[in-house]
Amino acid sequence: MEILERYFPLSNSSIPEFLEGVPEVEILLGCDRSQWVAREVGDGNLNAVFIVRGEAGSLVVKQALPYLRLVGDSWPLPLERSYFEYLALTEQAAHVSHLVPKIYHFNKTMAAIVMEYLSPHVILRKGFIRGIVYPQLAEDLAEFAAQTLFKTSDLYLPAATKKARLQIFCANTELCRITEDLVFTDPYRLAKLNRWTSPELDETAANFRRDTELKVAVQRLKLKFLSSTEALIHGDLHSGSVMVTPGETKIIDPEFAFYGPMGFDVGALIGNLLLAYFSQTGHESAPGMRDEYREWLLALAEGFWNGFSSRFLALWAKNPVGDAFTGILFESTAERRAIEAERHRFVSNLFEDSLRFAGAKMIRRILGLAHVEDLESIENTRIRAACELNSLELARKLILDAPSFGHIRHVTAAARAIHENR
Amino acid sequence: MEILERYFPLSNSSIPEFLEGVPEVEILLGCDRSQWVAREVGDGNLNAVFIVRGEAGSLVVKQALPYLRLVGDSWPLPLERSYFEYLALTEQAAHVSHLVPKIYHFNKTMAAIVMEYLSPHVILRKGFIRGIVYPQLAEDLAEFAAQTLFKTSDLYLPAATKKARLQIFCANTELCRITEDLVFTDPYRLAKLNRWTSPELDETAANFRRDTELKVAVQRLKLKFLSSTEALIHGDLHSGSVMVTPGETKIIDPEFAFYGPMGFDVGALIGNLLLAYFSQTGHESAPGMRDEYREWLLALAEGFWNGFSSRFLALWAKNPVGDAFTGILFESTAERRAIEAERHRFVSNLFEDSLRFAGAKMIRRILGLAHVEDLESIENTRIRAACELNSLELARKLILDAPSFGHIRHVTAAARAIHENR
Repeated sequence: MEILERYFPLSNSSIPEFLEGVPEVEILLGCDRSQWVAREVGDGNLNAVFIVRGEAGSLVVKQALPYLRLVGDSWPLPLERSYFEYLALTEQAAHVSHLVPKIYHFNKTMAAIVMEYLSPHVILRKGFIRGIVYPQLAEDLAEFAAQTLFKTSDLYLPAATKKARLQIFCANTELCRITEDLVFTDPYRLAKLNRWTSPELDETAANFRRDTELKVAVQRLKLKFLSSTEALIHGDLHSGSVMVTPGETKIIDPEFAFYGPMGFDVGALIGNLLLAYFSQTGHESAPGMRDEYREWLLALAEGFWNGFSSRFLALWAKNPVGDAFTGILFESTAERRAIEAERHRFVSNLFEDSLRFAGAKMIRRILGLAHVEDLESIENTRIRAACELNSLELARKLILDAPSFGHIRHVTAAARAIHENR
Repeated sequence: MEILERYFPLSNSSIPEFLEGVPEVEILLGCDRSQWVAREVGDGNLNAVFIVRGEAGSLVVKQALPYLRLVGDSWPLPLERSYFEYLALTEQAAHVSHLVPKIYHFNKTMAAIVMEYLSPHVILRKGFIRGIVYPQLAEDLAEFAAQTLFKTSDLYLPAATKKARLQIFCANTELCRITEDLVFTDPYRLAKLNRWTSPELDETAANFRRDTELKVAVQRLKLKFLSSTEALIHGDLHSGSVMVTPGETKIIDPEFAFYGPMGFDVGALIGNLLLAYFSQTGHESAPGMRDEYREWLLALAEGFWNGFSSRFLALWAKNPVGDAFTGILFESTAERRAIEAERHRFVSNLFEDSLRFAGAKMIRRILGLAHVEDLESIENTRIRAACELNSLELARKLILDAPSFGHIRHVTAAARAIHENR
């Protein structure tokens, strides 16, 4: 590889030259460079993704583009996000290496990460649409969230270590701004880029823009997103950022990573599982054909939260080493009991936060700019609108009445009740 | 001034050479350098402070020392804190220039700030001990806190601007650690450097170390201190960081500045006013002689909070321009009413936070390493201990029952009741 002094967008034809001389690549692809073949496969919003095949194997090159792909070059985006993605992947690998892709190389100038080609993994969201069951998934998602959130927090780290990371990730401002605008602001006003299933949802969208109580509650969430540095969060942890086989789970694409509220990651997962649930009506070959799968999705949401919360509590009980809730202050039996009660209180607050963020993430996917394939692929707009209305009903309730749920079972029960009442 | 390449501690004799050539200094002190006379007057814990006089006038040089003066060179401290102090003073001056000393020059290598000599100002704490009334004080403190907290928060700033400052102040880790240890941890364990009025408070100190409920509540505060970036706070806003004349107030020494919870600054002030209140018994020439002054101190606490909260709300209502609670979402009459209610809710939460932090700040001054002159100067240990027990009683209640107060009047009433019951 020549030393690249300036960024340029890679193409299928320039990839082999880019990879030349990168450590490990010859071992991974094979020595015969003439056999290296790249194919651009990116379907995300922000990046070019190349699968590169050689005689010996395959790998992926992910390169950040200088604009938001979904909107075009009118929406420029900083290339540095690739650096934050690389840093976040490295941090995550330290805690759950089996749940993230291997990183082989990072080129900062080119904003390109050379990483493991995941095969035969598929994007989880597509699996949900096809109705595929993943037995390992709840546990893997729970493990990923518990490990990465706990071990980057003040509950586990010395303050100086945490602040040094906070300082680095502070600079990922522009990606945070996308979330600030698209999740917490635009769905609640007449923003140029909003769209929704029309005319079916016209009135609902207008009602959401007038829903003062909801808007206040969402702004409260936005303030938490802006001013809470609980943990290094993935920042975009939806079912499009998870790749799966029936036995393996890999979490990808943490370019939105920054120090933010834990509930934003947990809520992103729960919210997207609920969107998958409500969208099943649009994917069943005949009414009721997906009933069993629907129930599996709800069990997945329950399994994820229950697995997450028990793992998080166990990690904390075993490692009370962070600067917050210093373990040395709680050594007698009574003190240990009290601090354990406080940990449950913390997780209970996190549950409420997560439900609120879940609601906000669901709404933005229906009334905002970026939608999800679970719903978008439903061609019959009457059915799609019905799925969306169900989602919006629960989402609003999650934001406004989070404390009324108390347990993940009450969330799944509410989803079921909304689905069955239609 | 020669270019100083390496830090060395300034002395009375090296100050004139250090100041040579610094812009403005000749105008301030006069051209005849032989007349420049420096005198070290520092009585704080962390720094050397020189008053420099010349024919034309005076100025102050404040230099950071590489260790904690109170403990000695066994406790090293980073010189960079001087840079954070300089940055914080500059930020504060942008909002309330009349309430901070003028800065003439900053030398990063020497960790030295050349600033306005405040005369005939005295340290507010000493004024409290002498029983002096400051008619302007409540309003000035309220203005300082409201302006600096609001205008550095997400309620006023674009996220990118706030995060750029957050990024800079993240590095002030070591000074934050002093607070984390000395305020939130050490008073609740047998720390080597703790001290208290002994033997009078021996049992009380032991009770505080065993007070599980209190320890959990204080650790909750510590987590907020570690992970909440609400505003650029002064970080050490007690009555020793305020200089006063009857007509003028200047807030000094923001070297602990960082992005933290607003309630920490507001609570530091309230807590130190309450310490001043309870310590009056040790300073009156005969019982009852300070009754009127006591009441003035309580009125000061009320005036500060009421002035702060009304100013903060007014600033917010007038400038709903930050990225949190985006003004554009709340433009109809009903929406404006709802957002105004939410602002009151925010301030009410801030009040509770402030009371809790006030309690924590009071306790650390009685059971921890660094004490306050209000109490330390009471030579009769029986009387001092009684003042301290009163303070501790209210402090504990502020932390554990903050929501029960509801209004600053109930705090001052509780202080009065504790004082009168002894």
